[in-house]
Amino acid sequence: MQSVITEHIQMVKGGNVTTPKGFTAGGLHCGIKKRKLDLGWVYSEVPATAAGVYTTNQFQAPPLKVTKESISVENKLQAILVNSGVANACTGEQGLLDAYEMRNEFSKAMGVEDHLVAVASTGVIGTHLPMDRLKAGIDQIGTNEHNGAELFEMAILTTDTCIKNIAVQLEIDGKTISIGGAAKGSGMIDPNMATMLAFVTTDADVNGESLSTALKDVTNRTYNQITVDGDSSTNDMVLVMANGQADNNQLSEVHPQWEQFKNALELVCQILAKKIARDGEGATKLIEVHVQGAATEEAARKISKTIISSNLVKTAIYGTDPNWGRIVCAIGYSERPIDPDKVKVSLGPFPVVENGLPLYFDEEEATEYLMQETVEIFVDLQQGNKSAVAWGCDLTYDYVKINASYRT
Amino acid sequence: MQSVITEHIQMVKGGNVTTPKGFTAGGLHCGIKKRKLDLGWVYSEVPATAAGVYTTNQFQAPPLKVTKESISVENKLQAILVNSGVANACTGEQGLLDAYEMRNEFSKAMGVEDHLVAVASTGVIGTHLPMDRLKAGIDQIGTNEHNGAELFEMAILTTDTCIKNIAVQLEIDGKTISIGGAAKGSGMIDPNMATMLAFVTTDADVNGESLSTALKDVTNRTYNQITVDGDSSTNDMVLVMANGQADNNQLSEVHPQWEQFKNALELVCQILAKKIARDGEGATKLIEVHVQGAATEEAARKISKTIISSNLVKTAIYGTDPNWGRIVCAIGYSERPIDPDKVKVSLGPFPVVENGLPLYFDEEEATEYLMQETVEIFVDLQQGNKSAVAWGCDLTYDYVKINASYRT
Repeated sequence: MQSVITEHIQMVKGGNVTTPKGFTAGGLHCGIKKRKLDLGWVYSEVPATAAGVYTTNQFQAPPLKVTKESISVENKLQAILVNSGVANACTGEQGLLDAYEMRNEFSKAMGVEDHLVAVASTGVIGTHLPMDRLKAGIDQIGTNEHNGAELFEMAILTTDTCIKNIAVQLEIDGKTISIGGAAKGSGMIDPNMATMLAFVTTDADVNGESLSTALKDVTNRTYNQITVDGDSSTNDMVLVMANGQADNNQLSEVHPQWEQFKNALELVCQILAKKIARDGEGATKLIEVHVQGAATEEAARKISKTIISSNLVKTAIYGTDPNWGRIVCAIGYSERPIDPDKVKVSLGPFPVVENGLPLYFDEEEATEYLMQETVEIFVDLQQGNKSAVAWGCDLTYDYVKINASYRT
Repeated sequence: MQSVITEHIQMVKGGNVTTPKGFTAGGLHCGIKKRKLDLGWVYSEVPATAAGVYTTNQFQAPPLKVTKESISVENKLQAILVNSGVANACTGEQGLLDAYEMRNEFSKAMGVEDHLVAVASTGVIGTHLPMDRLKAGIDQIGTNEHNGAELFEMAILTTDTCIKNIAVQLEIDGKTISIGGAAKGSGMIDPNMATMLAFVTTDADVNGESLSTALKDVTNRTYNQITVDGDSSTNDMVLVMANGQADNNQLSEVHPQWEQFKNALELVCQILAKKIARDGEGATKLIEVHVQGAATEEAARKISKTIISSNLVKTAIYGTDPNWGRIVCAIGYSERPIDPDKVKVSLGPFPVVENGLPLYFDEEEATEYLMQETVEIFVDLQQGNKSAVAWGCDLTYDYVKINASYRT
């Protein structure tokens, strides 16, 4: 686990978005997809302080606009509704009206005010939401059989092969604080089946502005540091809700345990991000790129992300080829100033480059190392003391297959 | 043919770097590779005005440093020596000494001054040049049997599947001017077999500064607008030599036919760039992305390049899937401001998006169109009058195969 101090943090076995007090969740099939669950929700007993981070794609889908508007009213949310199967992106005026109606119908069903509701969509681009089915689905939300965090986790998936959840606990002011999360990913973006979504819940009492700043910061070090194919979607969104049910003194930058809370939030987001990277379309391996000795954290992030985004690095690791030259090359075109004569590179435990020059290493042993399910690349730039990590996956025949032949 | 006015330009059938007067070329096998030709040269009877464009990768290989130094003396070159098989990159002090020795041995063999010689290398990274074999190869250069442009074109290849050449002619001051070229590409960069190299010759008399400015400008619109996998190599280089043997009045920005000459230079570079893109590793198709209606040429270039670099667009076209959403999405994350509600997209003759919204189109006909060997994507941003073109290739099983299993 990188750059997060975890000594105060406990993992919760089987934990999820409902581990924090006062949260419930559920999911059902309303008919947007043929068979699989396609409508999920998270609900807090009381309005929760909320913050969001949204895609930078200029084709931003209507649900993101509506969710932003909700949060902007008083930085609070009480419920989130997510559909999968249709992204409601590139849908124009009608798409925006549909997103508002989705929010409105859901807020009525939950008995909360409109502006306390967020909506998210993921799936096909350029198709309108089947509003009748969606509304019929919303009508069933009260029913007990649809309750459960796992149903929510399933309902938000698209080409993902597994659910992605996590919860951790820590003590703040002598109270137990929980933070839970759920996410979906896969191709990062694919107009058939799209998008990265992550939802984080906590029963901590957190100051709104501090929460928003912390989420942005944590997102830059976690969700923004993963890549499957480098395409950022029209619908990417991360939301966090903090409902204060744990009864701690309100957390903000001046609270003595603020860093502990922020570390726990980062851990939750990092684990979700890694689960997304490992489940990338066609992936057989998780790749972790650690860059240290950088002049700035931004440079460390950019260089690690450039390495993890290289198709040549990704295919080499798929082929268990200890091809350090591709790593060195990616460092060189990362557009951040480095000193080529100082660069060190290791493949897991095998140092392969020192001061920009190749070292002798046992190719057979290195090849064996690359057969692991998790492959680590370590880079030391020896020009400063900043570091970063990026996560990704290998580029495989299956990636090409999934993305070349989806419609056929 | 895009953005180049060609009415004054004639293609020369079978033309190459020796079509312009006063140039010879050749190639031979010196033993860096097992069997294939691996040493090639171009020679001008008289010193030629020269200009170069070099990789921006910070791990710049020694031959580039030596070539830059040569040209810097008086902006002239008389001979170029290229080896394939070993890139002489990440080779430290010894690599630099080897590059100097390569230049020195070749200049002696050709009877020209050191600073009139350029050297280029392409192949494995992190391996030293086998200097004995290289020198033995240089000793054979005088022999007639090794002369011929085609031998040169073959000697510079790595994983390329075909030679890449071109020559055009035009009238300047009533004299016939020829411009010829040769190039190699393939994986854009691959530490086993690397790099994009292009060499252009002309018998025109051209002012040195004007030639240098024109080459930079033309490179931005041609070689810099192609991508195979987005990785820029340690050894990428484009060189042009203008030896003045056509006896025209010296060309520069003030010459009335300057634009005609520059257009011809751009056409030569564009055709070489397209040949490189079409021969990308594992490629089955050439993809051309035309962006018009942009606010600036830089934005048009960046947006077209972003589309052509998207793995999702590349796999969709491999799979003949008319997946316009992936194109729209790439436009959206290109980091250049656009108005999503104005964007138009066509797949060849099929308009698929207008004002940011999908249009009805016949999927079967569009799929059939995508089976062509050349696929064109047209984007109109409707926010200005600038345009650009980018070229690339599809992402296929064979790309993964070539790059995952090279060493096995």
